[in-house]
This record gives sequence, C-alpha cells and structure tokens, in this order.
Amino acid sequence: MTQPTLVSAAMIAIGDELLSGRTQDKNIAHLARFLNVKGIDLAEVRIVADDSQAIVEAVNTLRSQHDYLFTSGGIGPTHDDITTEAIAKAFGVQVITHKQAYSRLASHYHSRNIEFTPARQKMAQTPENAILIDNAVSVAPGYIIQNVYVMAGVPAVFNAMILSVEPQLQGGAILLSASIDCPHGEGTIGGELTLIAKQNPHVSIGSYPRFDQQTYSTQIVMRSHSQDALDEAEKNVELMLVKIQRNESK
Amino acid sequence: MTQPTLVSAAMIAIGDELLSGRTQDKNIAHLARFLNVKGIDLAEVRIVADDSQAIVEAVNTLRSQHDYLFTSGGIGPTHDDITTEAIAKAFGVQVITHKQAYSRLASHYHSRNIEFTPARQKMAQTPENAILIDNAVSVAPGYIIQNVYVMAGVPAVFNAMILSVEPQLQGGAILLSASIDCPHGEGTIGGELTLIAKQNPHVSIGSYPRFDQQTYSTQIVMRSHSQDALDEAEKNVELMLVKIQRNESK
Repeated sequence: MTQPTLVSAAMIAIGDELLSGRTQDKNIAHLARFLNVKGIDLAEVRIVADDSQAIVEAVNTLRSQHDYLFTSGGIGPTHDDITTEAIAKAFGVQVITHKQAYSRLASHYHSRNIEFTPARQKMAQTPENAILIDNAVSVAPGYIIQNVYVMAGVPAVFNAMILSVEPQLQGGAILLSASIDCPHGEGTIGGELTLIAKQNPHVSIGSYPRFDQQTYSTQIVMRSHSQDALDEAEKNVELMLVKIQRNESK
Repeated sequence: MTQPTLVSAAMIAIGDELLSGRTQDKNIAHLARFLNVKGIDLAEVRIVADDSQAIVEAVNTLRSQHDYLFTSGGIGPTHDDITTEAIAKAFGVQVITHKQAYSRLASHYHSRNIEFTPARQKMAQTPENAILIDNAVSVAPGYIIQNVYVMAGVPAVFNAMILSVEPQLQGGAILLSASIDCPHGEGTIGGELTLIAKQNPHVSIGSYPRFDQQTYSTQIVMRSHSQDALDEAEKNVELMLVKIQRNESK
C-alpha cells in the first residue's frame, strides 16, 4: 500500500466562557467534521482562557507541531478580546491597523449610519503581514498568519470563516469510514474486537458504548485511508456479529 | 482585600470520536459548571486522541501545573480504551487488576447471569495505588491517582463519578458572578466597558455578543471573589447603560 499523505491540524478555542460552563462550545465539533471531510486530521484541541500567556504558549506549541492551527474567539471589539495581541506576541510581530479591514468596516458602518467607534476600529487590527479571512455574516474579518487561522467565536461567524478559507486548505488522503450498529455491549464484543483490530493494522477501529436505561449497545466505527482495508475490517465485524448471534441462539 | 485561596484544575477529554466530529462533547461544560460552583477554577482543557504518547504528555504537563486534573474517556473494555495504560505510563507505575474493582464487577455480572469476559475484566485494571471512584450507573469504577481523577466518557457515567468525588474536592474562594443583558452591540459599549474594566481590577468582565439576524446585543458577565467589588462593577455597567440610552434619546 502506498503511503497516504497525512495532513494534521490543531485548534485552540479561546474564552473564559468556555471554561466557566457559561457557553457550550459548538465550533470544535463543526471544525472537526469539516476537516475530516477535507482529509485533514484534527489531532488536538485546547480550550484556554482569555489569558495572553496561555494563548501564546498554546499557539507556539501547536503551530510548530501541525500543518494548520485554527483558533476561535477573542477577536471582537471589547477589552476582553485579546487574541490578536497574543497572536502577534507569539509571532514576535507588531499589531497594526490592517488597511483593507479598516476600510471594509468603515464603509459597513457608514452605510448603516452607525458610528465607527474606537471599539469597532479595534476589529481592523491584525498582526503584521496577516491575510484577511472574509466574514460574510458581520464583516469584521479574521486573518491568516503563516499556518495559523484566526477566527471568531460566534458559531455563525466561525462557520462562515471556515467556508471562506476552505479553497486554500490543502487536504491529504481522505479518511474513509464505515460504522456498524451492534446490539451487544462492549463487554460481549471486546475480546473478539481486539483480535479484529490486530488483524487489520491499517484500520482504526473505535467502539462507542450506548447505555439506554438497562440495555447496552455499541457503535463500531472503522476508519482507514484504504477502501479495501476498510471493506475487509467491515466484513470481519459482520462475521463476528453473526457468530455471537449463533452462540446466543444455541 | 485579603487574598482569596485559588484552586485550579485542568481537564483532558480523551477520544478519537471527539476529534472526528462524530461526538459532541458534553463533559467539558458539565465539569466546568460543577467546578465553578465548587470554587475551583478550570484553567485549561485539552482534547486528545486515543494515542498513548499524546495522553502521557498532556497528563504530565497538566497534573504538575494544577491542583486537580480530571480526565474523561478511554476506560472501557475494548482495545481502543488505552487511558489506564497511558496514565500508568505517565506515573511510571504498573497496571494492576484492582481487587476491589474486580470483585464489584464480578458480583455485578454474576448477579445478572452475564459472562465476566476478559474484556469486562479489563475494566478492573488501574495503575498501582489508585483509589476507586464509584460508578452508580454501570458499576465499572473510575479511579484517583495522586491529583488525577480518571473518569468515564459516557456523560451519564461521567456525571455520576463527579458526584462520587465531590466530597473529596477542596474548593477555594467561590467566584461570584453577575450578568447584565445589554441591548447594544459590543461596538457601542466597547470603549466605555474598557474603562469600567480598568476601574474594577478585582472584577473580570466578559462581554458576549449575540447576533440575532440583524440585531446585535451583548451579555456582560462580571466575576469576582469579592461581593463588594462585584456590586461596584455592576453599578458601573448599569450607569453606562443609562448614559447610552440618554444619549440615544437626545
């Protein structure tokens, strides 16, 4: 089997509200599903507070370990939006007013007869040499600096920004998947499934228990870069289920 | 103002399914809300794959930085449940069959006339010197090793385990909070709110935008260990809103 090209990514979700339980994050699962389809492996996510040092450390660790790093949150107009300052610090560059961002925002507010306050002007700031990410929902842009994609935390805006950058992301081999619902608990299938996992080294097999009051069942998810390998593992799991049923009806 | 006792925690959510977008995590927000009430500051969360090295690294980094570390996921009976092996590796100890866990599981399955398979026996394994965490939902226990609390990923079981360990957790000063719904966008209040944040150094003020088709509004959340400081900040924000309304009706 030829080696598939693997592309990996990490994400940092930024915001005190995610760590206080005030807000249930939705961006992580959205990005995960998006990258999965794109052939980019989301390898790690960190949720950090609105704390400059925490952001700088996470950014510098993860941008060097992965092909892409995505961040969500902290690029709005208020004092607690410190992401841009921290990203600039992580890269050792200055925060500047990005001319193109400024003019987009100025014309947006002017056309709506809304004052372009200093707080709103803050949303035109980026680290030096950043490339803007369009925001089809509410104009204020995100930006790209090297392999780091800085996006908003509001889910509708985050999703719009993901769509904006989609054409620029280079995916690798798509991870194919198949899943089988299994009417047995993990304790019943665990032993056999371990053997199947060993027999299928090119397939990652996940087992996800469901507990419905008194009954356990399991979803078995198989993932591989090779369709043939995936088909083989799927066949093995189906045979296992037939075998269990035969034993039970004895 | 006397210095409040600060207690901090981190969490590691373990599982490929969280990084593929298959599963929307619910445990993070649940733990966050629980710790918040308990006076424990959840400072960082990492989501990592079912990958031994990734788990070991995250565990060793976070257990040394925080008073408590909580993990979710990867302690079930199947081959992809590798958390216990990784935790033992992080502490440099052996994985053993925990006698008390074994006897709980054995009697549970025996009483239900269910075979106590090797896969199910795997759930009795812990690192050496671990203390069990009760599982009121499905018996298979979690465990504590030093300051690390290893719990299940299934939300109902995770929540039950949190309740089990609750009496043992030592909280610090409770973070008090107040919130004000504000009918203005962040761009309108951002400048004034920055001044209020500067005037109230003992209060952390967060500003959370809401976008409802065409209208922006904001929720302002204030958090402090001091009720007096919180009251003062709340008064400042209310005065700001009165001032804005007065200006708009001019």
